[in-house]
Amino acid sequence: MSTKVNAVSIFALGGLHEIGKNMYAIECSNDIVIIDCGNKFPDESLLGIDLIIPDITYLLENKEKVRALIVTHGHEDHIGGIPFFLKKINVPVYATRFTLGLIELKLKEHKILRESELIEINANSTVTFDDISVDFFKVTHSIPDCLGMVFHTPEGNIVHTGDFKFDLTPANNEHSDIHKMAEIGKEGVLLLLSESTNAERPGATPSEQRVGEHVDEAFMRAERKVILSTFASNISRVQQVVDACQKTNRKLALLGRSMVNVVAVAMERGYLTVPEGMLIDQNEINELAPEKVAILCTGSQGEPMAALARLSTGNFRGVEILAGDTVIFAAGPIPGNERNVTSIVDNLFSLGARVIYGTGSSSGMHVSGHGYQEDLKLMLTLMKPKYLIPIHGEYRMLHHHRLLAESVGVKQGNTFIINNGDVVDIENGIARQTRKVPAGNTYVDGVGVGDVGDLVLRDRKQLSEDGMLVIVLTLSKTEKKLVSRPDVISRGFVYVKESEELQRDVNRLITKNVNELLEANKYQWNVLKQTLKKSVGQYLFSHTKKKPMILPIIIEI
Amino acid sequence: MSTKVNAVSIFALGGLHEIGKNMYAIECSNDIVIIDCGNKFPDESLLGIDLIIPDITYLLENKEKVRALIVTHGHEDHIGGIPFFLKKINVPVYATRFTLGLIELKLKEHKILRESELIEINANSTVTFDDISVDFFKVTHSIPDCLGMVFHTPEGNIVHTGDFKFDLTPANNEHSDIHKMAEIGKEGVLLLLSESTNAERPGATPSEQRVGEHVDEAFMRAERKVILSTFASNISRVQQVVDACQKTNRKLALLGRSMVNVVAVAMERGYLTVPEGMLIDQNEINELAPEKVAILCTGSQGEPMAALARLSTGNFRGVEILAGDTVIFAAGPIPGNERNVTSIVDNLFSLGARVIYGTGSSSGMHVSGHGYQEDLKLMLTLMKPKYLIPIHGEYRMLHHHRLLAESVGVKQGNTFIINNGDVVDIENGIARQTRKVPAGNTYVDGVGVGDVGDLVLRDRKQLSEDGMLVIVLTLSKTEKKLVSRPDVISRGFVYVKESEELQRDVNRLITKNVNELLEANKYQWNVLKQTLKKSVGQYLFSHTKKKPMILPIIIEI
Repeated sequence: MSTKVNAVSIFALGGLHEIGKNMYAIECSNDIVIIDCGNKFPDESLLGIDLIIPDITYLLENKEKVRALIVTHGHEDHIGGIPFFLKKINVPVYATRFTLGLIELKLKEHKILRESELIEINANSTVTFDDISVDFFKVTHSIPDCLGMVFHTPEGNIVHTGDFKFDLTPANNEHSDIHKMAEIGKEGVLLLLSESTNAERPGATPSEQRVGEHVDEAFMRAERKVILSTFASNISRVQQVVDACQKTNRKLALLGRSMVNVVAVAMERGYLTVPEGMLIDQNEINELAPEKVAILCTGSQGEPMAALARLSTGNFRGVEILAGDTVIFAAGPIPGNERNVTSIVDNLFSLGARVIYGTGSSSGMHVSGHGYQEDLKLMLTLMKPKYLIPIHGEYRMLHHHRLLAESVGVKQGNTFIINNGDVVDIENGIARQTRKVPAGNTYVDGVGVGDVGDLVLRDRKQLSEDGMLVIVLTLSKTEKKLVSRPDVISRGFVYVKESEELQRDVNRLITKNVNELLEANKYQWNVLKQTLKKSVGQYLFSHTKKKPMILPIIIEI
Repeated sequence: MSTKVNAVSIFALGGLHEIGKNMYAIECSNDIVIIDCGNKFPDESLLGIDLIIPDITYLLENKEKVRALIVTHGHEDHIGGIPFFLKKINVPVYATRFTLGLIELKLKEHKILRESELIEINANSTVTFDDISVDFFKVTHSIPDCLGMVFHTPEGNIVHTGDFKFDLTPANNEHSDIHKMAEIGKEGVLLLLSESTNAERPGATPSEQRVGEHVDEAFMRAERKVILSTFASNISRVQQVVDACQKTNRKLALLGRSMVNVVAVAMERGYLTVPEGMLIDQNEINELAPEKVAILCTGSQGEPMAALARLSTGNFRGVEILAGDTVIFAAGPIPGNERNVTSIVDNLFSLGARVIYGTGSSSGMHVSGHGYQEDLKLMLTLMKPKYLIPIHGEYRMLHHHRLLAESVGVKQGNTFIINNGDVVDIENGIARQTRKVPAGNTYVDGVGVGDVGDLVLRDRKQLSEDGMLVIVLTLSKTEKKLVSRPDVISRGFVYVKESEELQRDVNRLITKNVNELLEANKYQWNVLKQTLKKSVGQYLFSHTKKKPMILPIIIEI
């Protein structure tokens, strides 16, 4: 793990071969600077796990070198791991005003806001460490106040794009600073880390303005209440809803904790302008005529506990969706969420609502925040990097990003498709993929961070599919024999109680097994337990085709 | 449950408000005729469940009236429940030659082929029961030999479309019999049951021919092996692959059990023409030059145990995908399967394969077998039904189908959006939604059919997320006291053993609880168990935020 003086190392602790838990690091002699610290939500195979965060073993081992965490923007996959990280390594966090607002919400929740050092930066800031200094440039994405960054290192300039698209007509007038990017490119970029989410999609990302036009039209056509669901952090879309309310003379209620919190941050910090008196409390919704009300709520991804899901099943206290109301999904479903979303759409239709959603022909109510192929090519063209590390994507996205880079002049062999933990070292201007640092998934399970591993997950999987069978044997120590009939208790398996025959056979099998072993003078508990696990397991599988976990317990008296 | 003589009842036992387990019934005085008997695959919330089939309680209660099962086509969601159904109600099964071939495979597997009565029909057949007779008409779909049917009842004609699209240039020259449909419509249709899968999609379904052109092109451009994955039952697409092999002079190997079985049925019965000598065994793949081989395999939906998934991870014995091979997904991902599919795509790209798949811009390698809006409108126009029951779809699809029907002249109020079990009765030419019959999901769990219910599933859910904790107390009956320290065993929870403090605290808590109760003369096991569940549960939740299942076991000696 030795790095030569002045050599620069680049690696990811999350974000490669996955969408989520972005965390990148640049190391140069005594400095390690971290970019982003996100989380990721588990898929169904990770039973019971609440959250996944990056494994930071390497940083803990080199704690004294970690100088700072710099954050590109405020999405969960870039800030969701911060509280867990700061609890272990309390370094200054640099981010823009809006991003800091969202980070503060998290730190408050984790009760570590006071001891954290948060430093506000903007696109004109420069941050300087021992061997590295960092400049910034504005990029457009689907949340305000996003940054790309240039790391000036002894080896040359390294650019990290953050998440971006080139929206030339953004809804919030926060433009990508293409001129600054051009200057950076002109100055020379040794290595570019650029996001890859939409590298498979041809063309250019549509502008946010298009969504605004569709929102306006839907509000104008709506004859009763309008309920619109989107990501709370998409403040420019929230602004579009506010504007549509103003044009159609509606009051606006916010439903869902993150919508209320994030909108408050955006208003306080000047990223959202809401006319005096437009916002109403949810209790006031029913006091107004339906055509005078709009609701902005969480739950566009079909999250079962979020506001929209509860509204769709009539389980949101005090607020109802009624026939003739208009419900708008102003966010596309993230892969994996499609079924949750469509089941809400079904419920809404059955309430008699008009539903505007994204299946079949696109509804025009959402555009991606991530650049398509033409956007990625424009970034590559502006930066003219010698080397590229495509980041923020699954393998096929990184792969397509490489092809795009080669199409605009990055030399074959100069794109590194690496995995989390793979280190690219740059020395004398030459980049090479060299060593590895530890990287992987750290599971958050209840209050536990990192203490649930594969063994527990394997147990949960078996329990979830086939349940379990507890066998309690009471043995006499002195006489070395069973003193009563074995007890058999099952959960999550077929109910053994209800299946008398099975119950009888299992009991008989256990008694026979145990007696045989005891007669053969095999009193070792291990042997008893292993024998029972095997024979009862085989019996049950052959009779039920299920493999419950078998847990023999021996009581010796 | 009384039905007046000559009145006709229509209901579904599956297929409404869902995609899957299609089963419809038409009842007229002494006849109940069943249409299709499908299965459905469980989503992740149904832990451990293998399959879902319709609840046939009503049919069992009226077993003597059930005359026949008539099958529209051979897809799983139309035939997958048949073995389970016939084991309970052994009536004749009417289906076309190819459909019967697939049904036979299932009955063989369930070892009930011999006692089943299978009757071959075709589009010219007529089947007659006491009060109902049935005629058929050809429809095009994504499997050969599909039928729609007309039930001639005393009340009038009832048409069931089966699954269909209007493919005017089908790959297999099996055309929709539009002229017969027109005649049926002219004769008069009282009620139409028409499928709704693509009722949300504007336009007309593209033709299968388009896929053939894309397959040909991909085969011609491929410089090494071609691996194509599709649904085994899509025989016209299999034929296109065979044709492409012939044009590019390749041998063809079949991988995956269902591919081998279904292709065998199709060849035997004359639905697929494969040139002599083209098919090779999988052992022969490596003996030929890569540009002389193609592989047709299962697994287009990303099923983790199917051939393609195993090929993508290098776990298919004797067959490898190498750099430069071309892999084609010739089937779109069914909603819910996207993530499994893309993870295979990632693996294939990392093997260096060229992958043709459906994300981003469409690959042209798949078209839907279900009619889009224009197809559904054409069916409605041909049939001119007085009443419509949209079937085969989730709520929003049924809803859109209703709107389409009204747009081509079905009267408002004459479309019945009903649920499984809702009965539409027709009397004197007037249809009304009236009674309900039992309907729902029957779970197949291992060999058990219907014996795993909500309680077991709830246990599995708790076990899967939070694991369990078994507490064994050994009590002296005579002295009414604990005779040893309680035993605590956990699985799927944090490992209590590794958390000494937790272990010590839980033990102390149990001992304290039990001693207090015993001192208060509360020796009832129920009280002991409930107290422990509550206090240990609360302790664990406050310390770990997890709620493991707590299973107290009392041994009395």
